[in-house]
Amino acid sequence: MIERYGHGGDIWTAEQRLGVPRAELLDFSANINPLGPPESVWQAIRENLSSITAYPDAKSRELKTALARRYRQPVEKISVGNGAAEILYGILRMLQPQTVGVVHPCFSEYAEAADVAGAQLYGVYAREEDDFLPSREALLDACGRVDVMIVGHPNNPNGRLLPLAWLREMAERLRARDRFLLVDEAFLDFLPGAQTLAGELEQHPNVVLLRSMTKFFSIPGLRLGFAFAAPELTASIERELPPWSVNSLAQAAGIAGVLDLAFEARTVEWLSEERPFLTAELERLPGVKTYGGEVNFVLFRCKTPNLQEEVGRLGVLIRNCAAYPGLGPGFYRVAVRGREENLRLLRALQQAIEEGSPACPTP
Amino acid sequence: MIERYGHGGDIWTAEQRLGVPRAELLDFSANINPLGPPESVWQAIRENLSSITAYPDAKSRELKTALARRYRQPVEKISVGNGAAEILYGILRMLQPQTVGVVHPCFSEYAEAADVAGAQLYGVYAREEDDFLPSREALLDACGRVDVMIVGHPNNPNGRLLPLAWLREMAERLRARDRFLLVDEAFLDFLPGAQTLAGELEQHPNVVLLRSMTKFFSIPGLRLGFAFAAPELTASIERELPPWSVNSLAQAAGIAGVLDLAFEARTVEWLSEERPFLTAELERLPGVKTYGGEVNFVLFRCKTPNLQEEVGRLGVLIRNCAAYPGLGPGFYRVAVRGREENLRLLRALQQAIEEGSPACPTP
Repeated sequence: MIERYGHGGDIWTAEQRLGVPRAELLDFSANINPLGPPESVWQAIRENLSSITAYPDAKSRELKTALARRYRQPVEKISVGNGAAEILYGILRMLQPQTVGVVHPCFSEYAEAADVAGAQLYGVYAREEDDFLPSREALLDACGRVDVMIVGHPNNPNGRLLPLAWLREMAERLRARDRFLLVDEAFLDFLPGAQTLAGELEQHPNVVLLRSMTKFFSIPGLRLGFAFAAPELTASIERELPPWSVNSLAQAAGIAGVLDLAFEARTVEWLSEERPFLTAELERLPGVKTYGGEVNFVLFRCKTPNLQEEVGRLGVLIRNCAAYPGLGPGFYRVAVRGREENLRLLRALQQAIEEGSPACPTP
Repeated sequence: MIERYGHGGDIWTAEQRLGVPRAELLDFSANINPLGPPESVWQAIRENLSSITAYPDAKSRELKTALARRYRQPVEKISVGNGAAEILYGILRMLQPQTVGVVHPCFSEYAEAADVAGAQLYGVYAREEDDFLPSREALLDACGRVDVMIVGHPNNPNGRLLPLAWLREMAERLRARDRFLLVDEAFLDFLPGAQTLAGELEQHPNVVLLRSMTKFFSIPGLRLGFAFAAPELTASIERELPPWSVNSLAQAAGIAGVLDLAFEARTVEWLSEERPFLTAELERLPGVKTYGGEVNFVLFRCKTPNLQEEVGRLGVLIRNCAAYPGLGPGFYRVAVRGREENLRLLRALQQAIEEGSPACPTP
């Protein structure tokens, strides 16, 4: 399993293990918007190349102003980081929780960041038979126990959203105990109509909404994330981050990206066509079952052994989810990409499934 | 004082406070190599622009290999970070010191990082009458008291090196108490002949040598730093840093830069001419006194009031060191730049000093 050494998108390890040059790998393991980066972002990067010779604005003032305008939030509620990962790690260090609650299956960095912060993990399990929607009761019960509760909204790897009413209840249950809710909204930009607590942070001073710009604008190599929280909590988060952590090009790219509403519209249109197509086609493959969700990646199950290696040899990199607590062998995640690439993925899967089928004679 | 809101190189604040457009400011407040970035680095950045669409190598494998070759260190002793600042903050968080020792005057981030880590600061003072060389006894005494001792080598803002024998004694005194020495070598690349503990880390498993690539290669906007330490300590440092913290372009720039030995040679040649010139010319200005040091910046004293604002209005940004503990009003730091720019600095200082002289009649 390639993930032993890294995450989705670890094309360096994949290259070593699969023997396929990384330039030739079609990467479905990282959930990156295939339409990006938009020309607006490329242009901002090219025009600001010379800015690397000066220190970046340590306060990301122009970027915060652009974010404030785009998301209609005051700058006092916005913190910016070197990728959402830096903010996630910073928040857990700052809050020094004894216990961190997560909902399995979920992004493995939650557990990793909790471990680095010295916290015990408390896991709620969303079950396959419930299509991986966790129960409201289990969520609220966890919020009565842990110091920080982390939920993906939508959740990675299955793309599930939680009802806004549940998030409110969770925030309130935690607040009654002076504890915190961290909602990872890294993929929420793909669902601009989705509900969020962003508009009610004044009522929830114990809530942080974590956002990423790397996925939506396809700039994971540049690193850029931000967070919304009430002003006091935002000030504490910023104090936790090292100075000058957001590089100049990421700031320039972010400013251009968030103001490019045409790109957002194209992305939403693409996803509304391509996700249903990919999900339906995956379901048609023998032995494949997909799970509910709404964003730019799909969780599925397939009984063919070594599926990741088999499609890898065909030049297609998918995410093996066997090591996710709450999943296990046979679970995989793929990003939604453009039609032609999705077809290449589907063909590689079909070939690997047919060749790997126990019904076929083995040489 | 512009530094109220930031550090040297904070051209955003300077623009606001001085009313001079930032593009027109000649910045002597940040200690950046004026010869850089070398063409090798520019080329690497241009050729790797498309790499921003994939996640960076979380382990910076190619960059570490290049650093290992250049500095003749095994990769197990090298950690890489999003600027030296990220590593500094990470080390202090990891070691959780109760007390951090510093030698005033010094880079203000030591105190800031100690504060964020919840440590008390213990200050040794280097005195003006000793040309800001701290006493060996005071250093060793501090190493018998603190949990982490931080020294700049060469030290910012005065550019002083410490004798290698002192560094060894400090490391040993700290090690006897299971404590740590952090040597900030951010500017050591400017002095390739200078002594360092880099070759004896096996004997000093409690020593971290912090390096920056932003100053020498003039890429502060991209962020890139690294550290040398014994393998076990290096592994602990890496665990403390958030994943994917070093962006793809910084990695590409670093690989190209460290292998560009011709750029290093040009830099050494420039500095060997320009620093003595600038120091001598500063000394010729009325009321200006410079202090000993060897690197690409010069600490000086001048009695003219509001010198920073006065030269700022002439389009030249210098570092006001009034707020450094151990210094006070009248201390300034300037970077060494090219001859033409240094002459512009000297003319601006001369004009400001003449106009600000109490001997001149005021209108």
